[in-house]
Amino acid sequence: MLFEKMRQKPFFILGPCVMENQELLYQVAEKVAEAGERYQVPVIFKSSFDKANRTSIHSYRGPGIEKGMEMLQNVKDRFGLPVTTDIHEPGQAAIAAQVVDILQIPAFLCRQTDLLVAAAQTGKIVNVKKAQFLSGHDMFYPAQKVIEAGNDQVILTERGNMYGYNNLAVDFRNIYDMKAFGHPVCMDCTHSVQRPGGAGGKTGGDRTFVPMMALAAKAFGADGYFMEIHPDPDNALSDGPNMVKLHDLDKVMAPLLS
Amino acid sequence: MLFEKMRQKPFFILGPCVMENQELLYQVAEKVAEAGERYQVPVIFKSSFDKANRTSIHSYRGPGIEKGMEMLQNVKDRFGLPVTTDIHEPGQAAIAAQVVDILQIPAFLCRQTDLLVAAAQTGKIVNVKKAQFLSGHDMFYPAQKVIEAGNDQVILTERGNMYGYNNLAVDFRNIYDMKAFGHPVCMDCTHSVQRPGGAGGKTGGDRTFVPMMALAAKAFGADGYFMEIHPDPDNALSDGPNMVKLHDLDKVMAPLLS
Amino acid sequence: MLFEKMRQKPFFILGPCVMENQELLYQVAEKVAEAGERYQVPVIFKSSFDKANRTSIHSYRGPGIEKGMEMLQNVKDRFGLPVTTDIHEPGQAAIAAQVVDILQIPAFLCRQTDLLVAAAQTGKIVNVKKAQFLSGHDMFYPAQKVIEAGNDQVILTERGNMYGYNNLAVDFRNIYDMKAFGHPVCMDCTHSVQRPGGAGGKTGGDRTFVPMMALAAKAFGADGYFMEIHPDPDNALSDGPNMVKLHDLDKVMAPLLS
Amino acid sequence: MLFEKMRQKPFFILGPCVMENQELLYQVAEKVAEAGERYQVPVIFKSSFDKANRTSIHSYRGPGIEKGMEMLQNVKDRFGLPVTTDIHEPGQAAIAAQVVDILQIPAFLCRQTDLLVAAAQTGKIVNVKKAQFLSGHDMFYPAQKVIEAGNDQVILTERGNMYGYNNLAVDFRNIYDMKAFGHPVCMDCTHSVQRPGGAGGKTGGDRTFVPMMALAAKAFGADGYFMEIHPDPDNALSDGPNMVKLHDLDKVMAPLLS
Repeated sequence: MLFEKMRQKPFFILGPCVMENQELLYQVAEKVAEAGERYQVPVIFKSSFDKANRTSIHSYRGPGIEKGMEMLQNVKDRFGLPVTTDIHEPGQAAIAAQVVDILQIPAFLCRQTDLLVAAAQTGKIVNVKKAQFLSGHDMFYPAQKVIEAGNDQVILTERGNMYGYNNLAVDFRNIYDMKAFGHPVCMDCTHSVQRPGGAGGKTGGDRTFVPMMALAAKAFGADGYFMEIHPDPDNALSDGPNMVKLHDLDKVMAPLLS
Repeated sequence: MLFEKMRQKPFFILGPCVMENQELLYQVAEKVAEAGERYQVPVIFKSSFDKANRTSIHSYRGPGIEKGMEMLQNVKDRFGLPVTTDIHEPGQAAIAAQVVDILQIPAFLCRQTDLLVAAAQTGKIVNVKKAQFLSGHDMFYPAQKVIEAGNDQVILTERGNMYGYNNLAVDFRNIYDMKAFGHPVCMDCTHSVQRPGGAGGKTGGDRTFVPMMALAAKAFGADGYFMEIHPDPDNALSDGPNMVKLHDLDKVMAPLLS
Repeated sequence: MLFEKMRQKPFFILGPCVMENQELLYQVAEKVAEAGERYQVPVIFKSSFDKANRTSIHSYRGPGIEKGMEMLQNVKDRFGLPVTTDIHEPGQAAIAAQVVDILQIPAFLCRQTDLLVAAAQTGKIVNVKKAQFLSGHDMFYPAQKVIEAGNDQVILTERGNMYGYNNLAVDFRNIYDMKAFGHPVCMDCTHSVQRPGGAGGKTGGDRTFVPMMALAAKAFGADGYFMEIHPDPDNALSDGPNMVKLHDLDKVMAPLLS
Repeated sequence: MLFEKMRQKPFFILGPCVMENQELLYQVAEKVAEAGERYQVPVIFKSSFDKANRTSIHSYRGPGIEKGMEMLQNVKDRFGLPVTTDIHEPGQAAIAAQVVDILQIPAFLCRQTDLLVAAAQTGKIVNVKKAQFLSGHDMFYPAQKVIEAGNDQVILTERGNMYGYNNLAVDFRNIYDMKAFGHPVCMDCTHSVQRPGGAGGKTGGDRTFVPMMALAAKAFGADGYFMEIHPDPDNALSDGPNMVKLHDLDKVMAPLLS
């Protein structure tokens, strides 16, 4: 049903990069729920319980899956929002699926067969992020792994391709090419503006480009938008340079819906 | 004055890739002039007198500079349109400048100092195409060569970057970065969808993406749009796969002006 | 002690891509052991128990970890060779470490903190393959994750970077840059000649380049070489186009040791 | 005859990037001639009369074609060396051909049909540098333009491909691919280590990699080597960071000839 709604209207996957604490999730989720109401579009709350592949071993990773799922359940209970999170090992699929409506497969892991199959078998929507090293055409195969595991609720997400070292470029033709498979295609406006490893042991980026990335994706036919938002990105524990400020959410969403 | 108009409203550089014959130029220019009237935006007629770097030595090159300038002058006389063409050697600058309003510097040649200086010294507007191997930031230097030669009527044009072999990807952030220099930035929607050398001895491409490229460029702040148009692109003598069909011009222009 | 030997002489990691059956492993291991004797260099037998990220879900994956470790133990017992295999989840590290001398971290997974830490904690040598999307400089961080987990027996392996879609190019400067960290650097001559996804649902490649890749790596200071070998690559169950023919092993090794 | 010699033994194209003054040319040419004697291989003296596409308009360009050809003739007269230089416009071909044995076509210009044809028609050997945006396979067409203009004395030179912004990577497979056309293939060990525009308004680089690039090219079948050399590269007027020190010439040549 959520999947059907996501096919009918532009959808938005929104939330802070990592679950810093319960209060942050409430604060952001409230605004997300309001935006869904205001624009009458599907909104899904997103946050990660574990940043499993940060550049440095010293970076903050998150509360872990158990505590994290509890925090997401609280968000669901309080705001009635559908929620999503990313998983990193096959064993996490069933656990996360007890709470989330959409399981997100990280870009680096989008060819890991066991992870895709485990996610598919939960029956939840599976959102596969396109790896930084694949074309839109190549995403036929990861999607097919989910489908052949018995689940046709697949979303594909664009997030840019490596362009030389420590830089990503978005080849928007990939959105068009992925749409040809028939799955909804989402634009990750946050991670596509990263400068991976470009800030000396952590990943940099530039949130200035987020609204432009979203509009360009719209031009190429994107069905939905993924954006990380935070009340105070410059003090966020992960991906700060790329996250949209919470009070700018309207400014970013409105032009996409006109 | 043309330059000032190009700063105030979205401008369009339009025409067939190469000057196949006078009738073709008239046929296209008529529609270009009409579009300029209808939308009340600056339109500039473009066509090349010489395709100087085609993949194969056997491909059609054009009528040459003398005949070509005559043909462009005829277009000017008949439709009152400003015109532009690309030059390939310093010696061509003054000759072309007797007719054209804008001199276009090809992407491959955008670092050739003598060509830039010769173009600058004509006093005409100089439209420097960003090389397929340069970033937006790098275009500071070619622009500066024009300015230091005494001409500050500079336009910079995005046309994509090499992405692996025989493929281009457009990193739209370059439009934003070039705008920071203060010059109008144009999006070449035709050549950015090329597949260079991707069709066995000639360059392929896909015109499907042209309107999307234009809208995405708008999202990143482009001031104008370059598009090659032709009544029958599939039988054109150059760049057919990338050219917009003449009768689709409205469909492409309208969304950019809403 | 193996690690010390690998620091003193050029080492070779050799074997068939995937454990097709026990006989194949014996057949290849015999030649590997002989080569080690003949050239008096460290040789390590490699084969995978699971191809966990093949392009298509229908491709052969291997015997699994339990059966696979048994097969590797048999090779060890019969030929006295050190052995290595690649792992894909943290939980596999301790199991594989009961048999192998070197744990190999796949390129796509080289930033997965838990996998690196689990491998490190076994006390075995950890061979981290450089991701197709990282520079040599960037490999400081994955190596550091192993070291900070208490294990300084780290090998770094070059295997090329994405160059456009469905193509890899080797930037050999990365070997030089990784050597600056003080760890032995290995050249994967097999996977660096892949054409990922370039053969319609499976990965293509060209074994012609394998000996050249090895010699070029030597020029840039590589300490060791990884090559997949097979008696009949054209009928192999994985990576056939890139594997060296078993009877060509000498032809490839000799020039590297002269 | 020179061309035949270049087919039989590894050849070396050597000299300072730009003709700073006559004394510099004599100083370098003397060492080049000695090296040719010592190793009994074809050596060709190279220097540019005009750096026509420098990043900044303020950089030193050279003495110009007239003065430059005089300086090259003096080198020829004094040391009996064959000489080469690069040309940038069709009109320069015949002038330079009065002195040089090989006309070099710059990489950015390697698709400019008129330049290739003008060079071909001089009857001199034409050395076409592979553009930073072309594959080895793509170089079939530029070579063919020379041949169809009546000259089959073609050399193709590898010099790396753009890898992201402000960086080049050498895909050595291109050497192998170009050799398939039957022309001698040369490795430009100097410009392949450039960091174009990577040093703020000028091009940086790293001469450390020059000898490694040459050895790797040998592994892939290169027939000759292009290296810029200078007695005091750090004070050179162009390409200093990439040039080999004159007194290191032996150290670089010897391993290539063993």
